[in-house]
Amino acid sequence: MSKAPQTHATRRGGRAARRSKRVGTAPPQLPFIHRQVGVYTLLDEEGLELIERNADAILKEVGMEFRDDPEVLQIFRDAGADVQGERVRFETGMCRSIIQATTPRVFRQHARNPDRSVDIGGDSTLFCPSFGPPFVHDIERGRRYALMEDFENFTRLHHILPAVHHSGGVVCEPQDVPVPERHLRMIAAHLRLNDKPFMGAVTAPERAEDTVAMAKIAFGHEFVENNCCIYSVSNSNAPLVLDATMVGALKVYARHNQAVVVSPFILAGAMSPVTVAGTLAQLLAEALAGLCLVQLVRPGAPGVFGTFASPISLQTGAPTFGTPEGMQIQFCASALARRLGVPFHSVGALTASKVPDAQAAYESAMQLQAAFLAGVNFIIHATGCLEGLLTLGYEKTIMDADRCAALQAFAQGVDLSSEAQALDAIAEVGPGNHYLGCDHTQRNFETAFFRSETADNGTFEQWSADGSKWQHERANETWKRMLNEYERPPMDEAVDEALEDFIQRRLGELSRQSG
Amino acid sequence: MSKAPQTHATRRGGRAARRSKRVGTAPPQLPFIHRQVGVYTLLDEEGLELIERNADAILKEVGMEFRDDPEVLQIFRDAGADVQGERVRFETGMCRSIIQATTPRVFRQHARNPDRSVDIGGDSTLFCPSFGPPFVHDIERGRRYALMEDFENFTRLHHILPAVHHSGGVVCEPQDVPVPERHLRMIAAHLRLNDKPFMGAVTAPERAEDTVAMAKIAFGHEFVENNCCIYSVSNSNAPLVLDATMVGALKVYARHNQAVVVSPFILAGAMSPVTVAGTLAQLLAEALAGLCLVQLVRPGAPGVFGTFASPISLQTGAPTFGTPEGMQIQFCASALARRLGVPFHSVGALTASKVPDAQAAYESAMQLQAAFLAGVNFIIHATGCLEGLLTLGYEKTIMDADRCAALQAFAQGVDLSSEAQALDAIAEVGPGNHYLGCDHTQRNFETAFFRSETADNGTFEQWSADGSKWQHERANETWKRMLNEYERPPMDEAVDEALEDFIQRRLGELSRQSG
Repeated sequence: MSKAPQTHATRRGGRAARRSKRVGTAPPQLPFIHRQVGVYTLLDEEGLELIERNADAILKEVGMEFRDDPEVLQIFRDAGADVQGERVRFETGMCRSIIQATTPRVFRQHARNPDRSVDIGGDSTLFCPSFGPPFVHDIERGRRYALMEDFENFTRLHHILPAVHHSGGVVCEPQDVPVPERHLRMIAAHLRLNDKPFMGAVTAPERAEDTVAMAKIAFGHEFVENNCCIYSVSNSNAPLVLDATMVGALKVYARHNQAVVVSPFILAGAMSPVTVAGTLAQLLAEALAGLCLVQLVRPGAPGVFGTFASPISLQTGAPTFGTPEGMQIQFCASALARRLGVPFHSVGALTASKVPDAQAAYESAMQLQAAFLAGVNFIIHATGCLEGLLTLGYEKTIMDADRCAALQAFAQGVDLSSEAQALDAIAEVGPGNHYLGCDHTQRNFETAFFRSETADNGTFEQWSADGSKWQHERANETWKRMLNEYERPPMDEAVDEALEDFIQRRLGELSRQSG
Repeated sequence: MSKAPQTHATRRGGRAARRSKRVGTAPPQLPFIHRQVGVYTLLDEEGLELIERNADAILKEVGMEFRDDPEVLQIFRDAGADVQGERVRFETGMCRSIIQATTPRVFRQHARNPDRSVDIGGDSTLFCPSFGPPFVHDIERGRRYALMEDFENFTRLHHILPAVHHSGGVVCEPQDVPVPERHLRMIAAHLRLNDKPFMGAVTAPERAEDTVAMAKIAFGHEFVENNCCIYSVSNSNAPLVLDATMVGALKVYARHNQAVVVSPFILAGAMSPVTVAGTLAQLLAEALAGLCLVQLVRPGAPGVFGTFASPISLQTGAPTFGTPEGMQIQFCASALARRLGVPFHSVGALTASKVPDAQAAYESAMQLQAAFLAGVNFIIHATGCLEGLLTLGYEKTIMDADRCAALQAFAQGVDLSSEAQALDAIAEVGPGNHYLGCDHTQRNFETAFFRSETADNGTFEQWSADGSKWQHERANETWKRMLNEYERPPMDEAVDEALEDFIQRRLGELSRQSG
C-alpha cells in the first residue's frame, strides 16, 4: 500500500485542533475495514487470462465509442490508439500498460473528519449507501418521490450508522429541488450534515467543477489539488460506449486528481451477452478503455475499476438482483481488478423487491456477502436499495447497515492468540459443565461476539410481550430515534457561509445563462 | 470419490422397472449438487494445524465422557484408550488414525426413488429441511404446536421442492402422536409421502432398530445391510460428553452400516469457550472421539463430521444465528473435515426470528450461503427454520428453498465454452446496440439465467396491480398450491401394508411393555 498522505487536519494546525476536539461528540463509528480474511475466487488464473484475452480482442477488433467529445478522441490518437470516427481501437495490452504505469493501487479519500477518511484498494473494504433512487419508502407513508428533506434525513442517518463508511452521492434524487440547483444542495448537505467522505456530481462537466469548488471551500484549495477528497462514478453505456456527459465529468475529476470509478453499467442479456463469460469480457474491455483515459488525462490520478452487472429476467426484461450470475460476475470481476492492480468498486445490498420484506433481505444479504467475500474495496449500494435502485428505503437502510456491521466483524478474522485458544478454560470447565461463569468467559465476554442492533434473539414470549414486531417495524422505530438523536457534525461558520455564498453565486450564473 | 454402488433399483429387476416407469409422474427435481466451484477458506494450513493440535491436547489431557454405557467404555479400552470411570482419554493421533483407516470419504445414501439417491462427501452438496421444531408457523394461523398433519404437509412439500434433496428426519415434532408411536409414524410418512432419502430416529436405540426394520421393509433386508439407506445424527452434549441415548443409536446405525453424523451441539459461550478458536478445538475433539467410536463399532461404516455451533447473546443467553462467529466456525470446521478426510454436515438457513420477515431472511441467507461456500456436504436446516429451530415455517420453507435453488445454480460455475465467451455476438452487436434479438441470445436465453420462483422482479405498477404482496404472502399462496397439486410417489401395496403391519406389531409390543 502506498504511504498515506498527511491528512489535511494535521496540515491545518489550529483549525484542525479545534475540529478534533469537537469530534468527541460524533457518534461511535467503525473505521473502514482492513480485511484480515481472504477472498473467494471463482475462476482460476487460466480462466481469468481467457477473459483478459477476450477483452483485449474486443478492444482491438470492435473497439469503444467515445461520443460527442473530440478532445477525448485526440487524447487517444496522441496516445497511439486507432481512432476512426468516434470508434477507438487499442492494440493488445495498450490500455493495461498505460493503466498499470501510473494508477495507484491504493489511495486515501479524505473526509471532513480525518478520523473518517478511508483507504480505497488493497485489503480495504468500505460500505457506501445507495446511489440514484428517485423514490423513497417507509412502511408508514409507502413509496413517494424523494424530497430534499429525505436526502437530508438519509445523510443524517448515514452519519450515525457505524458500519456505513461513506456519505455517498445522489443517495436519493430530491425532486423538489430544481435540476440546476440539485447537485449544489446535495453536495452542501454531504459537507454539512455528514463528516464522512462523499461522492461528486457526474451529470455534467460543470457540475463536476462545482463539486471541486465546494470541496475546496471545505478542505482548502491546495489540499484538494494534492489529495483525493471526491469520489466519482462514470458509468459506461454498455455495450462499448462512453458518452460526453460521463467522459466530461471524468476529465474534470481526473484533472483535479480526484477519484474516478469507471463502472460499466450492464443489464446482462440486454446490454451484454446472455452469459457470464461474455459479460465479463465486455465489462473488462469497457473498464480498461475508461481507466486508460483517466491516466492519459492525468497520470497518477486515482482510477477505480467498477461494475454494476445484473442479469435481466428473460421472461419480462426486468433486472434481477442477488442472483447466482450477478454474484459470479462480481467474484470474477474483482479478481480481474486485482490482476490489473487497481481498486475495485461494485454493488452490495441490491434487490428488486418494493418493500423491506424477506425477498429484499434474501437478495440483499446474498449480494452484499458475496461483494464482501469477493474482496470488493468500495461496496456501493450497501444500504437502502429497494426496487432495483428506483427506491431508497428508510427501514431497509437500518436493516442493511446492521448486516454491514456483521460483515465488518467477520472481516476481523479468527483470533488465534493463546487467550483465544482457551485451552485452560476447556481444562478448567471439563466435560458436562458450562462456561458461563468461568474466568475466561468473564475476561472476554464484552468483546466476544457481534451484537446485532436490529435482530430479535429473545424468546417468543418476550417478543410477543414487546408487541410481536417484525424487523421492519423495529427498524422504523430505530431510524426515527436516530433522527431525533442526530447531532450535526461541527463545521466552521466561515466555511458554512462560504458554501452558501458559492451556491447563491452559481444559482445566479445559472439563472442568467438560462434566462 | 469411491465408486458408487449399484443402486437397489438395478438390483431388483422387475420391481425397479415398474417403479422407474412411474417415476415420470414425480415433480421435476434437481439432483444433488456436484460442485463446479471452489470453497472459501478462512484459516490457512498453519491455523488449522494449531486447532488440530489443541483438539489432540484436549482428547489426551481432558478426555471425553461416555455416560451410562459400559459397552462403549470397553470398546475404547480394547482399542487402547485410557479409560478411567466414564472418562476416556486418547493418545495424540489415535482417533484420527482410526477414523482415517476405514471411514469412506464419500458414500451414497439411497433413496426409495433411485434417481433421488445422493452422494455425501467430496465435492457434493445437498440441502435438507430443518430438524426438531415442536412448533409450526404460517402467516394465517400464527405459531402453534406441530401436528402429524403438519409433519405430513411438510414432507409433501419437501417431496416437491426441486432444490431440497432430502426428506429429513424430525422435520417437526407431531405433538398429537404419542411419543412411543411418533418415530414410527414419522418414518412411515417419509417412506410413503416422499421418495427422497431420509433420516432415522436417534432418541433411543430401539427406535433406531425400528428405523432399520422399516427401511428393510421398503428397500429389502439385504440391500440395507449392504448399502446406506438411513442417515442419522448423534449430537454430543458439549462440552465433551456423549450420553447413552445418542451413543446407543450411534451403535445401532453403525452396526447396520448406516450413516452416523457425529455433530457436537454447541451454544458457544455457554457450552464452549466464548471464542472461535476455543470452540473449534473443542468441537473437533468431540467429533474425533465420536467418529472414532463409529469405526470401532463397525470399520467402514459411513461417519460424518457435523457441527451445530451458534454463539449465544452474552446479554441474554439466547442463541443467535447468521452471525459472523457462527459463519467463521463453519468455514473452519469444514476445512478441518476436509483435512480429516470425512464428509461434513452443518447448518443452513437458521434464524432467531419468530416470523418470515427480513431478519429471518438476512440471517438465513448469510448462513446458508456461508455453508455453501464453506463446502458443507450435507446442509441441514436448509429450509423452514424460525425461532432458532423451535418453529418450522410454511412460508419460510418456500422462500428458503428458492435460495437453495439459487445456490445450486451458482454451484454450476462459470461456463467458459466458446459459445459462452460470445465473442461473435459482441462483434455482431457492436457499440451502443442491444443483445435482445441477436442470434446468440436466441440460442441461449432459455438456459441462461436462474429464475426465482418466489421473487417479484416486475415493475412497481405491476406489483401494485397484483395486490402489493410481500414475499411471505406470495409464499403462502405457493405452499397451498403445492399441497393441492401434490401427488404421492408410487409405492408397492405390499410394502405399504407391511409397513403398517410393522407399526401395529410394535405398538402392541410397546403397549405390553408399558402396561
